[in-house]
Amino acid sequence: MIDEPLPVVKPKVRLKMADVARLAGVSVSSVSRALADSPLIPKELRERIQAIARENGYVVNQAARNLRLQTTQTIGLILPMGPQSDDQLTDSFLLEMIGALADEVVRRGYDLLLSKVNATSDGWLFDLTHSHRFDGLLVLGQSDQHVALQAVGAEYPAMVVWGEKMPRQSYASVGVDNVLGGRLAARHMVAGGCRDILFVGPSGVPEADARYTGYCQGLASTLASTLAQSGAPQRIESRFNFESALTAVREVIARKQTFDGLFCASDIIAQAALTALAEAGLSVPGDVAVCGFDDIGLARSLSPGLTTVRQDRATGARHMVDILFRRLNGIVAPSVQINAELVVRGTTRGV
Amino acid sequence: MIDEPLPVVKPKVRLKMADVARLAGVSVSSVSRALADSPLIPKELRERIQAIARENGYVVNQAARNLRLQTTQTIGLILPMGPQSDDQLTDSFLLEMIGALADEVVRRGYDLLLSKVNATSDGWLFDLTHSHRFDGLLVLGQSDQHVALQAVGAEYPAMVVWGEKMPRQSYASVGVDNVLGGRLAARHMVAGGCRDILFVGPSGVPEADARYTGYCQGLASTLASTLAQSGAPQRIESRFNFESALTAVREVIARKQTFDGLFCASDIIAQAALTALAEAGLSVPGDVAVCGFDDIGLARSLSPGLTTVRQDRATGARHMVDILFRRLNGIVAPSVQINAELVVRGTTRGV
Repeated sequence: MIDEPLPVVKPKVRLKMADVARLAGVSVSSVSRALADSPLIPKELRERIQAIARENGYVVNQAARNLRLQTTQTIGLILPMGPQSDDQLTDSFLLEMIGALADEVVRRGYDLLLSKVNATSDGWLFDLTHSHRFDGLLVLGQSDQHVALQAVGAEYPAMVVWGEKMPRQSYASVGVDNVLGGRLAARHMVAGGCRDILFVGPSGVPEADARYTGYCQGLASTLASTLAQSGAPQRIESRFNFESALTAVREVIARKQTFDGLFCASDIIAQAALTALAEAGLSVPGDVAVCGFDDIGLARSLSPGLTTVRQDRATGARHMVDILFRRLNGIVAPSVQINAELVVRGTTRGV
Repeated sequence: MIDEPLPVVKPKVRLKMADVARLAGVSVSSVSRALADSPLIPKELRERIQAIARENGYVVNQAARNLRLQTTQTIGLILPMGPQSDDQLTDSFLLEMIGALADEVVRRGYDLLLSKVNATSDGWLFDLTHSHRFDGLLVLGQSDQHVALQAVGAEYPAMVVWGEKMPRQSYASVGVDNVLGGRLAARHMVAGGCRDILFVGPSGVPEADARYTGYCQGLASTLASTLAQSGAPQRIESRFNFESALTAVREVIARKQTFDGLFCASDIIAQAALTALAEAGLSVPGDVAVCGFDDIGLARSLSPGLTTVRQDRATGARHMVDILFRRLNGIVAPSVQINAELVVRGTTRGV
């Protein structure tokens, strides 16, 4: 490393508005008006006050200014709540969504305030939306908190939720057509020869429930003739994380249940399923076909590549932030559903 | 979807402190004191005021409370500035760091305020640290802003930067030993038979410069005898993103420059290099060995797996947030350097 002296920049001293007033020989309210470029202060005086403020390194206290103006220039983002709130933030889908949302929000000159909340008390969401810490709220996943979102959505329009569109929803949501996604996956796996497909994912989370519904519909429509002698739809309970899914799939294998397909509610669950199958010496897709949901970067890079249902993050984030900013401007922009798309790679059998 | 009526929760009306005072028949300052559980208000009256506030859904205005208490319960996080500020937030290393930092910060009951700043004017960092919007600041990467960090670090101790430890640094930093990482990579590639290794990465960014320095040291120590007839260290300029690296490596191939190894300043750069090599029909590691830096999730999943220098995100994030909170408590905790570790996979030749 080069060890030469660095340029020294003298740290500036923090001035208050009163200091600027003293230096300019005017009142504090004149300084306030001049810095807001108010025409109530004569142009020449205004410019002199502005110059004094600038030259002496006066910085606006954003917190005080925001409180006065009732604005924060900040958008809140809450991360998965309820059953997922203990999970560490390692799911690529969530991380990529946060990145895409941050891009969209900062492009509009706002900051993003990230909170991870535990939905412990009834009023948690009401308290949050009334905390005056942000102008609008993005929620990443409904988790099992639809009722709380529904209550707050009725009186707080500046909230957009990533998730499944629910009946008579009071809040705006953006998400893929999860039912369609589940149907596409199940039909594709049946067409490839699967007869005993298990669903691996959580229950009570609207997005996962909708994927399960689609999977049931897909099985029912394609297996109608053979359903009696083959396996009915079956859910293997797993949270949205690697360890939980690994345990769940290992248990299914250990109890010698027969199955030839796993439809997983996320790519991380699918990755865990592939790990459990490999441990047990089962081949993919020869013995068991595997399909995920999300299409995170990993899906393409696995070998063989993971067949999955794509959720387009960039499109989703753009819709969420567009809707939120339209709502901040008083336009009650409605929910958006993004198309679900099956991406066939190597973990399922071709047709 | 089930289309049954949802439970209706009556939205609460936002009360002010004056409303609580009126309902309780006391002064506003008594309410303020009672809600802060001050012993100046008799216990019985205090509990009655607290009950009235609770039953009527009174919520503290956090912005006003924070301004009064001179606290924000928020940690700022700024994302890459300078030459990287135009890039979209898609680099897994950054996203995984944000996730790990969010985990560490929220575990301490704080929120994380994400900003992406353009380091356009001289005073941008001074203005930010004096904005009163957060209690302390985390900076993800020095970019080319060491001078600005150095100036602010001298008067604002509550700042921790992910990056390369610089000589006479005024601010706290956490980062891996980048020089060691570069040295390990170069030595490993030379031991595997490489004689013409190019470095692909940005110049003017301390972390990348340190990796380049280590690479030069590694070449010098191992190739000393053959350096005269083989290639000297050479840097192929690329920003820290996929497209920039893809263009850079394509150009090297197009001008028929001979090389048998690429040491890339990040895994994303390495991924682009692998893409460019595959396009040109060059085999890895047969024709060209490739080594990355970071060890993002992708590195393990590529086929063959990417040899890389590991930067442990969880450890790094824990150190950053630990140092920051110790500094918030008045303890000037020093910088930390994390060990760099070579992870050998399939894109380099074994020894």
